[in-house]
Amino acid sequence: MPDFMSIGRAILAKQPFSQFLGTELVELASGRAVLALDVKPEFLQQNGFVHGGVLSYLIDNAITFAGGSVLGEKVVTAEYKVNYISPARGERLEAVAVAESSGGRFSVCSCELFSVAAGKKTRCALGQGTIALLK
Amino acid sequence: MPDFMSIGRAILAKQPFSQFLGTELVELASGRAVLALDVKPEFLQQNGFVHGGVLSYLIDNAITFAGGSVLGEKVVTAEYKVNYISPARGERLEAVAVAESSGGRFSVCSCELFSVAAGKKTRCALGQGTIALLK
Amino acid sequence: MPDFMSIGRAILAKQPFSQFLGTELVELASGRAVLALDVKPEFLQQNGFVHGGVLSYLIDNAITFAGGSVLGEKVVTAEYKVNYISPARGERLEAVAVAESSGGRFSVCSCELFSVAAGKKTRCALGQGTIALLK
Amino acid sequence: MPDFMSIGRAILAKQPFSQFLGTELVELASGRAVLALDVKPEFLQQNGFVHGGVLSYLIDNAITFAGGSVLGEKVVTAEYKVNYISPARGERLEAVAVAESSGGRFSVCSCELFSVAAGKKTRCALGQGTIALLK
Repeated sequence: MPDFMSIGRAILAKQPFSQFLGTELVELASGRAVLALDVKPEFLQQNGFVHGGVLSYLIDNAITFAGGSVLGEKVVTAEYKVNYISPARGERLEAVAVAESSGGRFSVCSCELFSVAAGKKTRCALGQGTIALLK
Repeated sequence: MPDFMSIGRAILAKQPFSQFLGTELVELASGRAVLALDVKPEFLQQNGFVHGGVLSYLIDNAITFAGGSVLGEKVVTAEYKVNYISPARGERLEAVAVAESSGGRFSVCSCELFSVAAGKKTRCALGQGTIALLK
Repeated sequence: MPDFMSIGRAILAKQPFSQFLGTELVELASGRAVLALDVKPEFLQQNGFVHGGVLSYLIDNAITFAGGSVLGEKVVTAEYKVNYISPARGERLEAVAVAESSGGRFSVCSCELFSVAAGKKTRCALGQGTIALLK
Repeated sequence: MPDFMSIGRAILAKQPFSQFLGTELVELASGRAVLALDVKPEFLQQNGFVHGGVLSYLIDNAITFAGGSVLGEKVVTAEYKVNYISPARGERLEAVAVAESSGGRFSVCSCELFSVAAGKKTRCALGQGTIALLK
């Protein structure tokens, strides 16, 4: 069995944008990935919540890791959708992604995005998308 | 008629995440918004392309501006979808968003995301989503 | 507590398209709806599987019922997304929809679509969308 | 150059669900497909509008044809999203689909869905999705 965490951390370390934001790989197993990100003041929007673009980024990246765990390392997000459920406040974000299917070339993945404020988790967004294996 | 550009620039200036990345409002008119972003090395992913999360952020923000131009200032992206079409390389990104409908409380918006490399524009992603007026 | 099943069956009985196809309401409770449909030869596509449009219809309708169970009767699907996972064959379809959030005017719902062939259930599609309360 | 209309009509004739509803292929060219459907009373929902599932079906099918026109005959819709814009009334539906990209294995397509009432066209829904070439 591949050492998912080592492989995943190595990939994340090679993503300048993830390093720039400070993304951590919390968990990576076959069909499941958890990414987290400490919220910085620079991540907010005009109403004081975390900008949707940060949530989307984390969902996009988490489903790529979940899909990659079943398809292989050389994957990209082909498409995805996000529904925002509640404003994200607090000190940390967590994206929990699951590979819902795996068909050799594609994996359909879903993701729940949580914010953590004073130890309380709130689900802020839901994502669903397609991860594709590169040729 | 509202001075869209002044209003839009003021909103963008109040978005810490947009300031952090360096987003510019290029155009804002009734039903249409163009945002641009100079690509920095920190925006890339492991294959040397701009990270999808950056593209998604710019699409999300551009459709919010386009929707806000027909609904009013107090709007949020309720949901959206992105299809990535080609890897984004080059020195600049441009998101061109259009309000496809406006029904008082919601606006369905679409967005084309271009990268600009050595003066050549390439369409890299397509977005479609719903902007909602806050109560 | 409202008698969800009676209300739901009455609404379904007033949908000519659902009657035309033969849709049944199997379950309706606060935040959850299950619709089912016996597969007829007319529902297929050129490869002998159930046409994606039939699966989409059932997902669309199931999330409307799930959203309506938390928002009220006067609801519509504002938008949704479907990812097809595996071809649908067999004698029956079941759509299990859940209201993932409820915010007064909107509910984000998800749906799993199963086909049943010789008693064996296969998950064929996943949906995610927004249900909106009419004014 | 392939005779798109002949090929397209032959495929449509082999889709029992499309025959059941009465779908017509109005136009098929490289990267573009137009499907139409005369509205029957059986297609409505409880408020007297055409059921969203009918609109979704037509969008799903139209993007498959548009994608197939650039990828080849053996294609399926992998995923798509629909935003409903206005209720569909009237005597006819038209779905105009365009292949926005073509990358060998996938084509991202978009679709506008119109209803026609007393000669007046109204745009009722927008779709965006991925068509995949079967192996």
